[in-house]
Amino acid sequence: MSTLFTKIINREIPAYIIAEDEYNLAFLDIYPLAMGHVLCVPKKETDYIFDLPHDEFCNLHSFSQKVANAMKSVIDCKRIGVAVIGLEVPHAHIHLVPLESVQDLNFARPKLNPDKSDMIQMAEKLQAAFKSL
Amino acid sequence: MSTLFTKIINREIPAYIIAEDEYNLAFLDIYPLAMGHVLCVPKKETDYIFDLPHDEFCNLHSFSQKVANAMKSVIDCKRIGVAVIGLEVPHAHIHLVPLESVQDLNFARPKLNPDKSDMIQMAEKLQAAFKSL
Repeated sequence: MSTLFTKIINREIPAYIIAEDEYNLAFLDIYPLAMGHVLCVPKKETDYIFDLPHDEFCNLHSFSQKVANAMKSVIDCKRIGVAVIGLEVPHAHIHLVPLESVQDLNFARPKLNPDKSDMIQMAEKLQAAFKSL
Repeated sequence: MSTLFTKIINREIPAYIIAEDEYNLAFLDIYPLAMGHVLCVPKKETDYIFDLPHDEFCNLHSFSQKVANAMKSVIDCKRIGVAVIGLEVPHAHIHLVPLESVQDLNFARPKLNPDKSDMIQMAEKLQAAFKSL
């Protein structure tokens, strides 16, 4: 059975997509730790990120660097933090989270539940920033 | 003034070093979130990880993949988690943390304070695992 992320990649379920290349997709986390929290995923299903072949691993990180730079250019924050946990959805993914403090990367705290209109607005800003890099 | 990590890289202050290549160094975090928590740093001082030139960024992640695989081969855990925060030491670093649950990657919780002998033993195991990859 396809993972949730494969369904997003295949456009079987909707998502606030930010950026895409041949091998990777970036979209907003719908339960963000901070507004503008993005997930970067490889299109090929692999559960554990460190099991990715070396070139695909580098490719995913290279893509995430570009996404993080787009985020930093439009979101007011100290920097973009990174987390990979991987204990829930069995499809490798990198969390990119705008940080003001270390608490912003604490996955045990309650998530935000932003309005759809705020998510659409954020997605459009990030899409434009990514394209203009 | 050199960062704390540059002093470790230059062997001006001691550390439990795990692995090294031309551009990167890995050593145990002395205030680990879990036993075997490792930091991977580029030898060249750069504050914000996403400011690294693309090839150095990929190089650091490639190195961290190898270190994470060495960790997973000798530490009993579900997987190796990743975090980049960067609000304290102004020298880019990747945290690699053995995970059993999402709480193991919560930097706001109290850190461990392991015995020196346990740190030496862990460092030796990780060094050997890295060399045998």
